[in-house]
Amino acid sequence: MNKVFTWMAWIGVPLSVIGSVFHWSALLMFVIYCLTIIALASYMGCATESLAIVAGPRVGGLLNATFGNAVELIISIFALKAGLVEVVLASLTGSVLGNLLLVAGLSFFVGGLKYKRQEFNVYDARHNAGLLTFAILVAFVIPEVFTMDMSDQDKLALSVGISIIMIILYLAALYFRLVTHRGVYQQKSEIIEKHEKPEWTKGKSILILALATIAVAYISERLVHTFETVAESFGWSELFIGIIIVAIVGNAAEHASAVIMAYKNKMNVAVEIAVGSTLQIAMFVAPVLVLVSLLFPEKMPLVFSLPELIAMVVSVLLTIVLSNDGDTNWFEGATLLAAYTIMGIGFYLL
Amino acid sequence: MNKVFTWMAWIGVPLSVIGSVFHWSALLMFVIYCLTIIALASYMGCATESLAIVAGPRVGGLLNATFGNAVELIISIFALKAGLVEVVLASLTGSVLGNLLLVAGLSFFVGGLKYKRQEFNVYDARHNAGLLTFAILVAFVIPEVFTMDMSDQDKLALSVGISIIMIILYLAALYFRLVTHRGVYQQKSEIIEKHEKPEWTKGKSILILALATIAVAYISERLVHTFETVAESFGWSELFIGIIIVAIVGNAAEHASAVIMAYKNKMNVAVEIAVGSTLQIAMFVAPVLVLVSLLFPEKMPLVFSLPELIAMVVSVLLTIVLSNDGDTNWFEGATLLAAYTIMGIGFYLL
Amino acid sequence: MNKVFTWMAWIGVPLSVIGSVFHWSALLMFVIYCLTIIALASYMGCATESLAIVAGPRVGGLLNATFGNAVELIISIFALKAGLVEVVLASLTGSVLGNLLLVAGLSFFVGGLKYKRQEFNVYDARHNAGLLTFAILVAFVIPEVFTMDMSDQDKLALSVGISIIMIILYLAALYFRLVTHRGVYQQKSEIIEKHEKPEWTKGKSILILALATIAVAYISERLVHTFETVAESFGWSELFIGIIIVAIVGNAAEHASAVIMAYKNKMNVAVEIAVGSTLQIAMFVAPVLVLVSLLFPEKMPLVFSLPELIAMVVSVLLTIVLSNDGDTNWFEGATLLAAYTIMGIGFYLL
Repeated sequence: MNKVFTWMAWIGVPLSVIGSVFHWSALLMFVIYCLTIIALASYMGCATESLAIVAGPRVGGLLNATFGNAVELIISIFALKAGLVEVVLASLTGSVLGNLLLVAGLSFFVGGLKYKRQEFNVYDARHNAGLLTFAILVAFVIPEVFTMDMSDQDKLALSVGISIIMIILYLAALYFRLVTHRGVYQQKSEIIEKHEKPEWTKGKSILILALATIAVAYISERLVHTFETVAESFGWSELFIGIIIVAIVGNAAEHASAVIMAYKNKMNVAVEIAVGSTLQIAMFVAPVLVLVSLLFPEKMPLVFSLPELIAMVVSVLLTIVLSNDGDTNWFEGATLLAAYTIMGIGFYLL
Repeated sequence: MNKVFTWMAWIGVPLSVIGSVFHWSALLMFVIYCLTIIALASYMGCATESLAIVAGPRVGGLLNATFGNAVELIISIFALKAGLVEVVLASLTGSVLGNLLLVAGLSFFVGGLKYKRQEFNVYDARHNAGLLTFAILVAFVIPEVFTMDMSDQDKLALSVGISIIMIILYLAALYFRLVTHRGVYQQKSEIIEKHEKPEWTKGKSILILALATIAVAYISERLVHTFETVAESFGWSELFIGIIIVAIVGNAAEHASAVIMAYKNKMNVAVEIAVGSTLQIAMFVAPVLVLVSLLFPEKMPLVFSLPELIAMVVSVLLTIVLSNDGDTNWFEGATLLAAYTIMGIGFYLL
Repeated sequence: MNKVFTWMAWIGVPLSVIGSVFHWSALLMFVIYCLTIIALASYMGCATESLAIVAGPRVGGLLNATFGNAVELIISIFALKAGLVEVVLASLTGSVLGNLLLVAGLSFFVGGLKYKRQEFNVYDARHNAGLLTFAILVAFVIPEVFTMDMSDQDKLALSVGISIIMIILYLAALYFRLVTHRGVYQQKSEIIEKHEKPEWTKGKSILILALATIAVAYISERLVHTFETVAESFGWSELFIGIIIVAIVGNAAEHASAVIMAYKNKMNVAVEIAVGSTLQIAMFVAPVLVLVSLLFPEKMPLVFSLPELIAMVVSVLLTIVLSNDGDTNWFEGATLLAAYTIMGIGFYLL
């Protein structure tokens, strides 16, 4: 665990409680909540990692695949409970764009400043390309186009149907990678390198995971209620907060480690974090949120706004074209960052 | 010839005649017509195959490329004659989706249950990817976007122009594969394996082809008139009948043989059936139908509904991304089947 | 320098002056202007080439990258000054389509008539594919979708922001190719072959470049004022003139040399001209024109009409799919030409 995050968590949690009891200004609390969640997310990531190592590759893969975006899931559930459907869709979009363009872009760029060419497993890249195409170009695009003239009820029926299929395919993808085709597409060099030691014991990991999850839930519930005030103060739309802020808060720790891995020339790991996290958001978090929203008065159909959808679609196409050759350099990173900046400006002006 | 199909044909044709003379219920007749056409299509496929072997690879390739979807062509012509332009466009869509997602998906999945990895000729895959992109992403997308504010006359002019270009390019593709570049992109192992014997003699094949074609024409004319009743009875839209039912009936025999080939690890043949059939539908059957429709009062412009077009576009993109590496496994099959299911739900709710 | 172009220039320039003084018919002048500009463009290309050889690969690459489409830039600036924003957007579209489909298509086709398979550097192809995706699918698509409900001011702000990012990334791409990664992705055979002699000395090249630029500017200013009359006479829309005529006039000399290179089996050079020129138009000329338009009363946002945008998007996808394997043949050329014809008919009927 990084010391900075440890301190941030130990200071942030009490401050969050005190601030919400004494009604400190929404803007200040927004900042405190965000920083505390970043720190707690880092704790949860570390605990999941330790558990995954103890549990072995199969169960560990499953743990990573379900808890990897737990923070984002928790924030989104409280946002859904507060009826902020648009913010949730926006933060899903923001996570997809952030992972595919910002995280991968920074990784390629920073890694590329040190190494002329960096390689990653092209089989994984193609496997992921297929899933990205399925998730974004099929499962997100189809409801957008088909629900144009649909009743709200059919819209929801289609969304639920697609969500269930996505979750099944996501589980099938895990089964494929962890069971039937484990190592089939791996390069020899990759198979050996894994002899990590868990940072924490099993019991400590579970305890930390449980406590951090409770704290994140507590803070998330309060965080979503500051959005309106923050949006007004800065002249931002709630959409912009969802797309840029929530997405970054939910993924900050992950982002940092991807860039560090790229700098260490472990481009496979960096790509896995960036694209793997995108797939988890699109194929697991998003459909789970659709199903969870059925419990609340305000349902969430799987229908993004057109700018959100198109931004995700072109990001996926750009990622596939750039990662097709299993080779990265600083310029590919710059291209992804330029695309992210363009979309950032676009969403800001929207 | 499969015995089941032989029996279905010998029972189905007389039943079709008797039923239509005695005005049996439309629902019953719909089922009889569909099953009989499936059986007759299998006869026609077998006869074409025999003729193709006798005629040698060049003329044989041409025969397969023109008669391969004869049944679908015949049904569609009678549907056009009956003024069911939307149903024809829907059944073209259904054939494209069915071949790219259902047939290829089942082939990859079933083959993948037996073999960990299956390979096919990556040159053919890329050649086909180019044609799919041309046919669906250019020739189908352009009229959709350009005709938005066009007069009906210009709409038809554009459709006819595109149709003529598509047919010319389709013939050029045959010339490329059968004459100028025969074997240029083939792997050595593939060249040897073909020493098939025709099932029927030349004369018998031609006779069967002629008789089956007449029977299919007779039944198709009656089939299209049952659509309305069937749609009402089941609460389906005519669109749904076109997309799911007609597409399956027209291609059932073909579908079965693709899956069998995949199970025998002849993935090249399976892919060739699935993608080759798609190309034939998109680049030959569709434009021919546009031109044929000029003879009828109700003309058919090459303008699909937006859901149909987008469904085809994303299917092509998914196929290209998945087949880009010349390697399949059960999970790629599952992905295609999941996409087909999503679209099926979408069209059902539309 | 080709003799024909020399004669055309020496006759065309005086005729252009005389004709405009004596008010010859707009139609006649349109033809004279076009032919003269084609000849002058050839002069400018030759002078840039000579300067580039003298200056060495780095500065030379920069010269080619900025002066390569100088003629188109000059015509467009005068068209912007005359308030013809739609014509400028159309001619940008026309250049992109012309280079990607017509020039590459003719090169592949003509080269393929002589050689069964022609190869080009697949690394360059992929690098270019990434840039094409960024320029067209991200930087052109995003403003289209995001500005739908935007005020004119925000529309322009977004366009200016994107334009600046595009120019920076274009310069970064030059830096990547000419400095940090020069030769990294090149095949050995390519590195040796360049020992060209400049046709003209440095002084002569600069003089010719200066004089030709002035002449092109003089004629362009007059050319754009003939558009309206020509459009009326032939029943063409100004859009069609922009897309087909201006694009061909601005690039004719370049087009010819690409096809000649393909015929000499130098497919690398042919592809570089076609795709390199497209990238220059999309990532340098287009954003520079957006910024230049700020000086004129009529501003140009980076928002194409939907048919223009979709035509460019599908052309890029087709190019990427076809060039993905680093291998061309006559049929791939025919496919590109067929796509160009379809779009030509579409824009004519629009």
